[in-house]
Amino acid sequence: MAELISPRTLKGFRDYLPHLMIPRERLLEQARAVFRSYGFAPIDTPALEYAEILLGKGGEESDRLVYRFQDHGARDVALRFDLTVPFARFAAQHIGQLGTPFKRYAMGPVWRGENTAHGRYREFWQVDFDLIGVTSNAADLEVALVIHDLFTALGFDRFQIRVNNRLVLNGLLEEFGLADSAVAILRVLDKLPKVGPDAVLAEMVEKAGVTPEQAAQVLSMAQVRGSNCEILDRLQSEFGKNAKAAEGIARLRELNSVLQACGVPEARLRLDLSICRGLDYYTGTIYETFLLDKEDIGSVCSGGRYDNLAGLYTRQALPGVGASLGLDRLLAAMEELGLLPTASTPAPVLVLQLSPSLLGEYQRVARQLRATGIGVEVFPEPKKLGQQFKYAESRGFTLALLAGEDEIAKGTWKLKQLASKTEQEVQASELLPTIRRLLQQT
Amino acid sequence: MAELISPRTLKGFRDYLPHLMIPRERLLEQARAVFRSYGFAPIDTPALEYAEILLGKGGEESDRLVYRFQDHGARDVALRFDLTVPFARFAAQHIGQLGTPFKRYAMGPVWRGENTAHGRYREFWQVDFDLIGVTSNAADLEVALVIHDLFTALGFDRFQIRVNNRLVLNGLLEEFGLADSAVAILRVLDKLPKVGPDAVLAEMVEKAGVTPEQAAQVLSMAQVRGSNCEILDRLQSEFGKNAKAAEGIARLRELNSVLQACGVPEARLRLDLSICRGLDYYTGTIYETFLLDKEDIGSVCSGGRYDNLAGLYTRQALPGVGASLGLDRLLAAMEELGLLPTASTPAPVLVLQLSPSLLGEYQRVARQLRATGIGVEVFPEPKKLGQQFKYAESRGFTLALLAGEDEIAKGTWKLKQLASKTEQEVQASELLPTIRRLLQQT
Repeated sequence: MAELISPRTLKGFRDYLPHLMIPRERLLEQARAVFRSYGFAPIDTPALEYAEILLGKGGEESDRLVYRFQDHGARDVALRFDLTVPFARFAAQHIGQLGTPFKRYAMGPVWRGENTAHGRYREFWQVDFDLIGVTSNAADLEVALVIHDLFTALGFDRFQIRVNNRLVLNGLLEEFGLADSAVAILRVLDKLPKVGPDAVLAEMVEKAGVTPEQAAQVLSMAQVRGSNCEILDRLQSEFGKNAKAAEGIARLRELNSVLQACGVPEARLRLDLSICRGLDYYTGTIYETFLLDKEDIGSVCSGGRYDNLAGLYTRQALPGVGASLGLDRLLAAMEELGLLPTASTPAPVLVLQLSPSLLGEYQRVARQLRATGIGVEVFPEPKKLGQQFKYAESRGFTLALLAGEDEIAKGTWKLKQLASKTEQEVQASELLPTIRRLLQQT
Repeated sequence: MAELISPRTLKGFRDYLPHLMIPRERLLEQARAVFRSYGFAPIDTPALEYAEILLGKGGEESDRLVYRFQDHGARDVALRFDLTVPFARFAAQHIGQLGTPFKRYAMGPVWRGENTAHGRYREFWQVDFDLIGVTSNAADLEVALVIHDLFTALGFDRFQIRVNNRLVLNGLLEEFGLADSAVAILRVLDKLPKVGPDAVLAEMVEKAGVTPEQAAQVLSMAQVRGSNCEILDRLQSEFGKNAKAAEGIARLRELNSVLQACGVPEARLRLDLSICRGLDYYTGTIYETFLLDKEDIGSVCSGGRYDNLAGLYTRQALPGVGASLGLDRLLAAMEELGLLPTASTPAPVLVLQLSPSLLGEYQRVARQLRATGIGVEVFPEPKKLGQQFKYAESRGFTLALLAGEDEIAKGTWKLKQLASKTEQEVQASELLPTIRRLLQQT
């Protein structure tokens, strides 16, 4: 006998079995529906790109993680490590044909050779959406609306979108006389939820070269609490004379009022001056999204406004605003919160096979139900009924449907609810309404 | 100024812009719905695998095309070149946990370093579904039903599933005294649609070592025409005494009669003894699917029954049956047949922006429509109306919705049908039914 090859996934990679893949597909489908409902169009870019396209943007640390090799034509190629850099290349290449404004979403796996010690995977899915070609605040507030409708569609009730604006932060720092240290200060401030206020104060002094008093001043502003309007009013009175701050305040105020006009519950949108995102390229509105029952996992949907998406590839300025959904992090959170279904079948009904000679009847009735949108599996072998029921339970079917020669002759079916183990005999003509009613109950 | 990096896709790769990505997503969604309705569950496997897992199965020719390199840990890794080999590894690894029967579908890109001279791409999508763990014919006929419902769901009317059974072919060859040359003969016969009967005859003599008379005998059987029942009756009377042939005939007969019982139109299923698929690992039913208005592109959905999916990785015999949809080939055919929509927006309605101060109103009404399933984009800038209409037309929106201060005060909206350029004024309360009616007309 030939020696077997050990069946295993590559280190840092994993398979998605049905019980996890069914919810992942559902999340993607719900996200697609929300994006499309706002007119965001899908695009896709290749997994592989010229290395020069992908590298040199994310910094040495991220370059080191990139899967890079030579293809058959000795080209220097790499696997994408996010969906942003390929989108920048895409936009530079096609924007002339596509025109602006251009709204896109993209979904797909990305690859990073991460250290696997902390349960990190080297292949994970990203879901991004962006609106490019415009600077107007209408785009910024729409991104907040999309995030809101997305999490509502995904079935969350207790979530909060936290927004800020880089213009406000930069205006404040100007007023504090710290404009030159802005980037360093915001990088430290970004760590606040992780390391806490004391560490932030110390690190600001150490790394951003500010005095302890200045650090305290920054931190104190960042931690201001109150209703969105209260914070905006206070900012206006204290910093309204600074041009940058004033514009940021006006944009946040409009975002807040339009979301209110649209019926977004007030608690879902929180102005938070400590939100600043470490990435240097955000220049305006910033978004983070937290699940209030699982805040410790951090933001599950983040993004912001940028002045120039594709400066590496084109001289055409492409401002825009967008956000990215951390799909795997969200799935993991939903699993921990018990929000994932336990069934590993996408169909709720199983037709048992009592006799192979009745396969035509089984598939005929199954197809009638399928045509009305009810998923129906026909068990493929005439095994003992006990084994077929065991299969039905282990897969998580809701209903089992049985008929032997007698039932078919009488024109009836036996219908069993698997959870309660109750059985009833149903006329063939009553099968569809009865099944529909039972499925609605569960 | 820093030098720009030229924005281009890697040789042999391409971007999917919205006008192609919208139909691709639709096809995938329709396929998912059909698979799920039969109880096939989604799974996903990584793009990257240990090279030893992927190689050594497809033969040297295909190994040469595989993207293979060393990862950060100096592991010998490769990008998957199909979804079958990863599924075999997956099944060997997880079948103990999953149990049988196991029904799965998988969708995703695969990579092959093909010669790009003939318009071939190096990244393309495959869509596979399989039912493993059973030898019963119930699985085989279900695969034919799934293919049928799939193409119906995708909107095709004129398509034909052509079936055969390797047992019939092998039985015939046994009866002709050609059992030892079966593999070589079937490889040649598989080329019939491409090279024609004369070339097949010559090649059988040359490569399979049969006499011209034997070759003619094989070809003549393969080309038998008639209704499915006529062909089966003739096979039964001529070869029914051969055990293999008899089993194959019985399986095809049941497949045919169950599909009839399920209401599949007779013309959609055709028994064709010349269909044999070159792959050596098929052992039973074989399927090919042709678009009758585009036969020259070959089969767009093919598959068959196999005795042992995962023999490289496990001693557990895993028989099964499945098929694979050639997604890109199908998309290309639909494009040539004019079956793809021309719009590059997933939303049919555009709300124009007359005044930024009305953004709250625009988004509010847009969200009301979205909540009923109607996609609505709000133009993000208060540009000249002419420019906004030009955008609406170029993207392919169906309706434009306008309101300035006057209309909002009156509680009305202007609704414009972009194709006919007709405009009407509608009460806010009548907006939803009016839009719904107009969208149904198009």
